Amino acid sequence: MAGKNDKKADASTGQPIHVVDYIVQRLADEGITDCFGVPGDYAFPVCDAIARSPKVRWVGCSNELNAAYAADGYARVRGAAMLSTTFAVGELSAINGVMGAKAERSLVYHVVGMPSYQNQRLRKVMHHTFGDGAFDNVIPLSAGAACTHAVITPENCMIEMERVIAEARRNNQPAYIVVPSDYALTPVMWTEVQRATLQSNEPSLAKAIAAIADHLSRAKSVVALPAFTLSRLGLQNEARRVIEALGCPYATTAMEKCIIDESHPQFAGMYAGAVTEKETKRIVEEAEVVLDLGGVSLNDENTAAFSGQIDPARFVSIELNDVRIGDRVFTNVRLADVLAELAKLKPLAQRYQRAEAAAPRLPGKPSDKITMEALYPRYAAFIQPGDNVVLESGSTSFGIPPMQLADNVQVHIQMLWGSIGWATGAALGVALADPKRRTLLFTGEGSHQLTANEIGNMGRWGAKPIIFVLNNDGYMVERALEQYPDWTYNDLAKWRYADLPKALGCADWFTARVETLGELDAALKAARANTAGAYIEVIGGRMDMPLGLSYAHSRLNQLYGAAP
Amino acid sequence: MAGKNDKKADASTGQPIHVVDYIVQRLADEGITDCFGVPGDYAFPVCDAIARSPKVRWVGCSNELNAAYAADGYARVRGAAMLSTTFAVGELSAINGVMGAKAERSLVYHVVGMPSYQNQRLRKVMHHTFGDGAFDNVIPLSAGAACTHAVITPENCMIEMERVIAEARRNNQPAYIVVPSDYALTPVMWTEVQRATLQSNEPSLAKAIAAIADHLSRAKSVVALPAFTLSRLGLQNEARRVIEALGCPYATTAMEKCIIDESHPQFAGMYAGAVTEKETKRIVEEAEVVLDLGGVSLNDENTAAFSGQIDPARFVSIELNDVRIGDRVFTNVRLADVLAELAKLKPLAQRYQRAEAAAPRLPGKPSDKITMEALYPRYAAFIQPGDNVVLESGSTSFGIPPMQLADNVQVHIQMLWGSIGWATGAALGVALADPKRRTLLFTGEGSHQLTANEIGNMGRWGAKPIIFVLNNDGYMVERALEQYPDWTYNDLAKWRYADLPKALGCADWFTARVETLGELDAALKAARANTAGAYIEVIGGRMDMPLGLSYAHSRLNQLYGAAP
Repeated sequence: MAGKNDKKADASTGQPIHVVDYIVQRLADEGITDCFGVPGDYAFPVCDAIARSPKVRWVGCSNELNAAYAADGYARVRGAAMLSTTFAVGELSAINGVMGAKAERSLVYHVVGMPSYQNQRLRKVMHHTFGDGAFDNVIPLSAGAACTHAVITPENCMIEMERVIAEARRNNQPAYIVVPSDYALTPVMWTEVQRATLQSNEPSLAKAIAAIADHLSRAKSVVALPAFTLSRLGLQNEARRVIEALGCPYATTAMEKCIIDESHPQFAGMYAGAVTEKETKRIVEEAEVVLDLGGVSLNDENTAAFSGQIDPARFVSIELNDVRIGDRVFTNVRLADVLAELAKLKPLAQRYQRAEAAAPRLPGKPSDKITMEALYPRYAAFIQPGDNVVLESGSTSFGIPPMQLADNVQVHIQMLWGSIGWATGAALGVALADPKRRTLLFTGEGSHQLTANEIGNMGRWGAKPIIFVLNNDGYMVERALEQYPDWTYNDLAKWRYADLPKALGCADWFTARVETLGELDAALKAARANTAGAYIEVIGGRMDMPLGLSYAHSRLNQLYGAAP
Repeated sequence: MAGKNDKKADASTGQPIHVVDYIVQRLADEGITDCFGVPGDYAFPVCDAIARSPKVRWVGCSNELNAAYAADGYARVRGAAMLSTTFAVGELSAINGVMGAKAERSLVYHVVGMPSYQNQRLRKVMHHTFGDGAFDNVIPLSAGAACTHAVITPENCMIEMERVIAEARRNNQPAYIVVPSDYALTPVMWTEVQRATLQSNEPSLAKAIAAIADHLSRAKSVVALPAFTLSRLGLQNEARRVIEALGCPYATTAMEKCIIDESHPQFAGMYAGAVTEKETKRIVEEAEVVLDLGGVSLNDENTAAFSGQIDPARFVSIELNDVRIGDRVFTNVRLADVLAELAKLKPLAQRYQRAEAAAPRLPGKPSDKITMEALYPRYAAFIQPGDNVVLESGSTSFGIPPMQLADNVQVHIQMLWGSIGWATGAALGVALADPKRRTLLFTGEGSHQLTANEIGNMGRWGAKPIIFVLNNDGYMVERALEQYPDWTYNDLAKWRYADLPKALGCADWFTARVETLGELDAALKAARANTAGAYIEVIGGRMDMPLGLSYAHSRLNQLYGAAP
């Protein structure tokens, strides 16, 4: 065994490995092949290490928030992502995107280059600081957006990388890794480290399974709610096996759209509080046990403003590292291990089989203006097996989820954090994470304005999405959520959306602006046929909104508190 | 006197005033007539109050970072600005812009609407949170970007508004004001408050002035360095009177470009470390006393990577609230008061009068490709008295400052915080803050990509800027600052920049893409003639850089620490 002061050497070359190369290699070992980011001088060592790396590609973005959203999207598909920004100005621009990944359990490694330790020690008046010689006022802010963080030195590099990776994986949340620019270029001090494996405590696991089995066996009715975390951890099939073993119905909220194929005979439909279909609502709200697979989030957005009636006492919650049954908590049991054991349970007394649904109709004539009633069924019919669908929080996140979609469709939505603009950035990451699938982005023009400058990079990096921008003359979802919908602050600059891709360098994209159903149908056909990207501006009515949104509109006091 | 529990009533209507209306009115009293922002549901009460306000206009921006930059730009012209964002997703997207305002002492009031206190108390699973019932994890982050903050309730509203305004004005830095959406709509509890006036401690002021006078009288040579803070506080004329009273030469760094008219006979030129002109360098570096008027920031950017030789011991520093002479500190003396007293001092023994400079030449033939050597003198000749000039950190912030500019030009630059993309957003705020001046934005395409989605709002709000985007095929300033300029991470998506304004709705703007000096000259003429906005894409050489930047390129080790 080498001594503690030996420098870590690259096995193939025998050369010492520099800190920043070690960081990049270690993250590449997590299965990451792309790093989203914006270069900056303090982060040059990180960018350089990626440029040297045979395993990781640099994916430059237009700005850091877009890069963070892209990394979040990528992590949702690939399990983990890498984001690189520069000190202060870069990392703070990304912070909302990273914090959204934390809220929605998406594993983003945020690697930041900071001023050299030498200049920190000399308290130099450097750019990207307050000019007061302090360098420690930004780290706590970025750390607040992550579940763990480390300031890397040559001495702690190997130990700290294992610690932050283990902690980030345990929570499936972002890690913030910051490295001074001189330490980045210093050889790593060799330390013996062991890669953590996330294992359950066996006795705790056995007790948890026994308790769940006992609880389920006594229940007259059970419904499963597979949670969004299953797709983050790649455990959809494992959850499906549990549901099939038990034979119970399952429902999904909009956050879990398509997490298991919607043609499944045990799929009882979408749960959305008061706007749930009657039979689905009965199954979910009257079940004696709600089997929460992964930690569902029943928030104001996916329950139509808390309009549902599920008794929290009926929950059996299987979270990432714990199982909760009433006031009993079984700690240190991993979700994957619990699902594997539950799949071995005997079927419940009654096996659920849903009734066949009628095929959806596509209302409207070709010459009709586009209504939401006609639009969403057309979107549903357009979405094909193998598509990756990215939904913006807004009217589309109310409009598309109630539609039954084809099998083998992956839907990505940021419904809890709900940062508008997310979907456009995330679509870049989703598309690059799995180029074999076609990525479809559904957004509204208000949200799109925040991050539309990322379209140029979609073309540059070969993402080839099909983008739908619903233009209803303002922040319609906001008009819906307030008492005076005509306040002008919900107006927007009047962009010529369909001209954007060409202006941003996507010369070969199909673009269209559609006002009638006939134009929409033709554009849908052309977009699918085009092998490059496509961008369709869809003109909608100013206050034409999907059902879930109009219901929320009627419950504003529950959301914001009563007016005086 | 009304009792403590009386509600504050509007003098004109006799109706009680709601918290959020009080906040908006109180900030309007600070001379603010515009609020930059992005609406969001928790912030609707703020947006509504602005919609109701006869004094403050809502200026919607494409995203929150752009809005923060615009507010920063506005504050630099008007003394203070208002920024409104929504809880978590909005405020965190703005945080880098607000922190830049803190670093560069620009007074931005950041007003944020958060979930109702009722929902906080019930620990509801609300959107824009982690879904865990906690609502207090974002406030410390936003507060870190401000110099003071307050969570407003009906009871504390009047007291806290006075406290944060006084503290923000004392430091000329941002204040963060957050209000739960239900409290926002509750009547203010009346409290007797007094508006703070920022006054010096008279004995401390007298001692400070005596000490400075004594120090100056003993000096064989004095140079004044007027600081960027003078323009933030509107004290340029006051500083000019001091300099004229003393008769000493003064120099400016790029951060203080044009802070006093450059035709002034006492103007000794631009100081930029080793790239300073010889005579200016001698005057600054050999002066026995450096009279720092406002707290100059001699950072890596404006000293060509610390290449100057000014002994800090020679400084007499007059900062916002303190005077420092060597190790003597006189506290609680306001900059304005010190300047007023110094203007009464007797002239120094020697009065400085600079030599006449030769008129600049405009090199190159019309058919020549555009070089930096030919470009910057043309920019200088183009800039007219009365122009507002916004410079991006990058090659233009090295290229334009060495040029002598016309009198009555205001230059805005973010040189210490140096967040790329700032200038495009700031230009919107600068233009709206003073519509009588024409706003000129000089940026590079790499920086511009971060925030170019704000152009649509320039057209929408009638900003009418003239925008110059230097396109040199990548982040040229970054290529200059690293050892391997050909790393592809400094490449960009290839936008058709000159097509952007039209795509973003600015139908009546003049646009051009220029490759030769003849095309440039024609476009300059047309842009000035056009009464709407103008946008000129200027094609530059890939590594054609101004002098200051090439010097920095040669001193990378000073900036980033030695490579191993």
